Amino acid sequence: MAENLTRKILRRHLIAGDLVPGTDITVTPDQILIEDATGTMTAMQFEELGVDSIQIPLAVTYVDHNVLQVDDKNMQDHRYLQTFCQRYGLRYSPAGHGISHYIHLERFTRPGGFLLGADSHTSTAGAVGMFATGAGGLEVAVAMGGYGFDLPCPRVIGVELVGQFPDAVEPKDLVLEILRRYGVRGGRGATFEFFGPALEHLSISGRATIANMIIETGATTAVFPSDEWTLRWLTEQGRANDYTPLAADAGADYDESILIDLTELVPLVAIPHSPGNVIPVTDLPDTPLSQICVGSSVNSSYEDLATVAATLRGRTVHPRIQMTVTPGSRQILQTIIESGVYQDLMQAGARMLEPVCGPCVGIGQAPPRGAASLRTFNRNFPGRSGTAEDEVYLCSPSTAAASALTGRITDPSGRDPLEIRPAQVPDTSLHQMLITVPLPDEARGSIVVERGPNLVPPVVPEPIGDDLQARVLITVGDDISTGDMAPDGAVAMSVWSNIALCARFMFMRLDADFHDRAQNWGGGIIVAGDNYGQGSSREHAALIPAYLGVRVIAAKSYARIHRRNLIAAGVTPLVLPPSSPEFSTGTQWHIKGLRQALLGGAETIAVEVTDRVDPLVLDIQLTEGERHTLAAGGLLAHIRAGGRHRVRELETTDLAFTQTADGR
Amino acid sequence: MAENLTRKILRRHLIAGDLVPGTDITVTPDQILIEDATGTMTAMQFEELGVDSIQIPLAVTYVDHNVLQVDDKNMQDHRYLQTFCQRYGLRYSPAGHGISHYIHLERFTRPGGFLLGADSHTSTAGAVGMFATGAGGLEVAVAMGGYGFDLPCPRVIGVELVGQFPDAVEPKDLVLEILRRYGVRGGRGATFEFFGPALEHLSISGRATIANMIIETGATTAVFPSDEWTLRWLTEQGRANDYTPLAADAGADYDESILIDLTELVPLVAIPHSPGNVIPVTDLPDTPLSQICVGSSVNSSYEDLATVAATLRGRTVHPRIQMTVTPGSRQILQTIIESGVYQDLMQAGARMLEPVCGPCVGIGQAPPRGAASLRTFNRNFPGRSGTAEDEVYLCSPSTAAASALTGRITDPSGRDPLEIRPAQVPDTSLHQMLITVPLPDEARGSIVVERGPNLVPPVVPEPIGDDLQARVLITVGDDISTGDMAPDGAVAMSVWSNIALCARFMFMRLDADFHDRAQNWGGGIIVAGDNYGQGSSREHAALIPAYLGVRVIAAKSYARIHRRNLIAAGVTPLVLPPSSPEFSTGTQWHIKGLRQALLGGAETIAVEVTDRVDPLVLDIQLTEGERHTLAAGGLLAHIRAGGRHRVRELETTDLAFTQTADGR
Repeated sequence: MAENLTRKILRRHLIAGDLVPGTDITVTPDQILIEDATGTMTAMQFEELGVDSIQIPLAVTYVDHNVLQVDDKNMQDHRYLQTFCQRYGLRYSPAGHGISHYIHLERFTRPGGFLLGADSHTSTAGAVGMFATGAGGLEVAVAMGGYGFDLPCPRVIGVELVGQFPDAVEPKDLVLEILRRYGVRGGRGATFEFFGPALEHLSISGRATIANMIIETGATTAVFPSDEWTLRWLTEQGRANDYTPLAADAGADYDESILIDLTELVPLVAIPHSPGNVIPVTDLPDTPLSQICVGSSVNSSYEDLATVAATLRGRTVHPRIQMTVTPGSRQILQTIIESGVYQDLMQAGARMLEPVCGPCVGIGQAPPRGAASLRTFNRNFPGRSGTAEDEVYLCSPSTAAASALTGRITDPSGRDPLEIRPAQVPDTSLHQMLITVPLPDEARGSIVVERGPNLVPPVVPEPIGDDLQARVLITVGDDISTGDMAPDGAVAMSVWSNIALCARFMFMRLDADFHDRAQNWGGGIIVAGDNYGQGSSREHAALIPAYLGVRVIAAKSYARIHRRNLIAAGVTPLVLPPSSPEFSTGTQWHIKGLRQALLGGAETIAVEVTDRVDPLVLDIQLTEGERHTLAAGGLLAHIRAGGRHRVRELETTDLAFTQTADGR
Repeated sequence: MAENLTRKILRRHLIAGDLVPGTDITVTPDQILIEDATGTMTAMQFEELGVDSIQIPLAVTYVDHNVLQVDDKNMQDHRYLQTFCQRYGLRYSPAGHGISHYIHLERFTRPGGFLLGADSHTSTAGAVGMFATGAGGLEVAVAMGGYGFDLPCPRVIGVELVGQFPDAVEPKDLVLEILRRYGVRGGRGATFEFFGPALEHLSISGRATIANMIIETGATTAVFPSDEWTLRWLTEQGRANDYTPLAADAGADYDESILIDLTELVPLVAIPHSPGNVIPVTDLPDTPLSQICVGSSVNSSYEDLATVAATLRGRTVHPRIQMTVTPGSRQILQTIIESGVYQDLMQAGARMLEPVCGPCVGIGQAPPRGAASLRTFNRNFPGRSGTAEDEVYLCSPSTAAASALTGRITDPSGRDPLEIRPAQVPDTSLHQMLITVPLPDEARGSIVVERGPNLVPPVVPEPIGDDLQARVLITVGDDISTGDMAPDGAVAMSVWSNIALCARFMFMRLDADFHDRAQNWGGGIIVAGDNYGQGSSREHAALIPAYLGVRVIAAKSYARIHRRNLIAAGVTPLVLPPSSPEFSTGTQWHIKGLRQALLGGAETIAVEVTDRVDPLVLDIQLTEGERHTLAAGGLLAHIRAGGRHRVRELETTDLAFTQTADGR
């Protein structure tokens, strides 16, 4: 059978299970990516495992989220992560050095490898032919400890690209087109694998934009072949030796197939409040802007910024607009300076920010409420910008640039941008200097991990009981994102190392009393609609309900990562029937025999609900391993009870791999 | 009589009073400087005056403080200020364009002029022979409305400079030496006027550092002559026509005189928690650092940053340290990029921040608590960094650079820095493009000032009554800064446009219950030690107690600007005897006949205090005008009641002045 590239890569890393879409497989990752926001929990839970050293050839911690430091908590987190890395053998990329996904792409990605990251946009590395996917912090910690990583084997959607981009249409418009077709749920359980003649027009930074944002469809990841663009990229990064050509077999099978003709694409925009609400820019009503933000883990590449600069050069940003530009990494920052792109942007009036996540996660640059903000980012969930009633639109760099001149959302087609300045070859020595390499084993034992008072490990829940009586705490709708549970923003994210403090922000936008009610009631049930927990991989969205005493959630369907995080945190994700009735807050539920049902493999469970004659029947859609994990009280308890075993120990040959990965 | 330069400039602007130190004079400023943090209150109070247009030739609003935007409030403030400027004829410098004091020095300062600013460090402009001083927002608004500006005529301290700076000793060390001699109170009521042969070694940016930080002694300002350095500076800024040579008469009289031999200076550091706690670097015990910050409204000039870069070039910042560098303006940013200084700093690992106030006012980069942070800033008041238990040290750029390499506070003497990169001639067109000029009169009437919900004008207090019974709300010690009343930081400062919200932060560091107690008690008395209200000019420190119902403060002595702000806000600053007894919180005070005492010119007033047999006698040290202002309920009420008159109306010739000021 002619095999697609996704399956080839997965097969190479498979430890257990069969490559049957929808069934669980266990793989062993080559690389781990951690960022600071989700990383402190990842690290604290890794320490709970009692493993002396990482059991993966390469793991890198990037400080890129909590770097504004509005009080003393952020720097405590940084210092904890820095000493954690020294102690356990990770590399450390300091605050201000760049956004994890860009630096990882520059310095560490390898065609054919498997990258697991404690960040949903880890998929970015699919641009160079990796299988790269995000997961919750505990699952990442467990994989880093050598226990492997479980995931549902994805179905593979083959995306054939033909044609050429029209003027002012960009890779961002292509991924927005996919979101227009699939929405934020259509990609669930899938990997998008790209092929076809139009790949010759798609550079690595364009592919990275697509691979990053593909997960907004709910997908597991995206995979591109490793080809001439990949070789060129790795060569520019001083890593030509890391190149391997990779592609699907000729005539490979796909579980689904689609064709996209780039020639037919137009500039698109995702309107508030979902990356799935995509329409052509020309279909928008007149939309005056207060703010334009270029950057984030998409569209912060040299090409992206040079494109914006080519439109703005010698012109001035509309005086009503505040415009910010964030390069993706210090290397990109250096490149835009050496090529004059930075100066073009600055002289046009753009505010040049540090190479960090920044406004994309509401860490600074929150817009005024009710005033439109246009961003080249990947998400516009309500409140993610840091402003409660925000109005965020997502677009390409060209659309952002054209709009910066007019002060309203503007179709860039037919404009006459100036010539794009050529990039200087980046100086990769900068990254090599500032990212620390692991200490030798003998030096690590004496490192004291500095854990300031902001760092509080989460409590491991008790094993699940057999009889659960609880009230409905809240009923929420479809497509609730993890950002509604653990919100973005400089203040809310500064407490992500302490679940008790995070908990105060849960569902704040939807119901300001949720936290206090949950505390007063000693827990309860969360009832939700479809695609519950979409978006970010932040496991805080699962650790908070566990901390608040929530042992069961009942939703019509779940987003992949959040569902897994709930299980890891010991919270059972039951499935409501599609035609589920409404439940008022306070409705009493009585679930009998939950533990027995989990361990006995039952596929449904009956719930007695106040004021209802017939019991409510919920589906239990869980694998064998998930059932035992939940019964034990979550993944950490399960491992402590001997329920999971190491699948690999790091070998000396792995370290040789590591040593070449950054060219040293 | 041979006159000093300070008196010459004051005489030129004098409207009323005599130049007798300690007595009140009224002057008319040529220029007004407003920044966004104190500026929204300034602007809202200007609007309350009912004046249709500014009555000063030049007024500029700079958005440089509240620019992190952790939620939606900051951008509301910016939009308010931008439309306010359009409506009333001010220039507007947008967020990210630079720090007010640097831009003003570059674009608008004029030898011999009088600059009034709603910011204590307005004194910076003394570097080019201006009399430049800070005041509270309402006093600035009133001056901008044409009512003149009242200030106590300063005594003039003549500072003769001889000798030359030793290697690695800088202008920052000179002003720290003055602070070592005078402390934070010794300069009260004084202007420091500099002269002597060593001026030939002091460039304008070095003079600006001294003029900026001189006010930490409590001084009104500093004045430098206008000489060859001034001509060179103005020429580089494209403003050679704005040059006038100015100096004291030969053998001029000074109220006091000191001599400083630069040759004897050594690298100095101000240790926590006061800019007056100055010791030689070599007297410090070993002090490991967590953070180094270069920048703020001192030491963000091209020379400063080039000096740091010359030490760091090709080296790497100690890995334990987070180092930030903030250029003073976009023009400086452009200059450090074109000369390679930016690249040197970036490659050494420094985090390059926007040209804004930033960490100096705790807006980002808050250090970990209890861990030393070394900063080239002007203040290290407790908590100003944004961290409650901070440990901030102040130093010169050379000391910061040497310490960045070692990770501990290090004497830069004897180090061998590389050659300082020469500056490119700055491109002044950038500033001319981004700072808006006033609209023509006929276009202004139709401008709608956009006042979002974050902008709430302060309530004007009732006229003061005759009988005041109130309890002591709090007793605080010496040298309490206005930052203890209206704290710095991204969150606390985001509400500076709404006094009711600001009030929640008052004295938070000293007594977390203060706000609630004041609200529950409906006001009360604040009892304080010496130099009450030192530091920043923020009038919020006076508007908050007024809002909370505090009508009287009893302190041993006051800082100049805060004392005036209290009066403007309708809060009477009474003076405690030096040997005042202690008062517990809750002690009942009864002040009879306060209104009568104020209006009748009484110099003391008796207070009946619970459990004391003898009344407490407090001094009333107020001018005639101040007494009437207080009786009316503050400055706005006083003006509304006809108690103050316009001293000038803007004339057409003034506008001609304005038009040349920025070279257009």
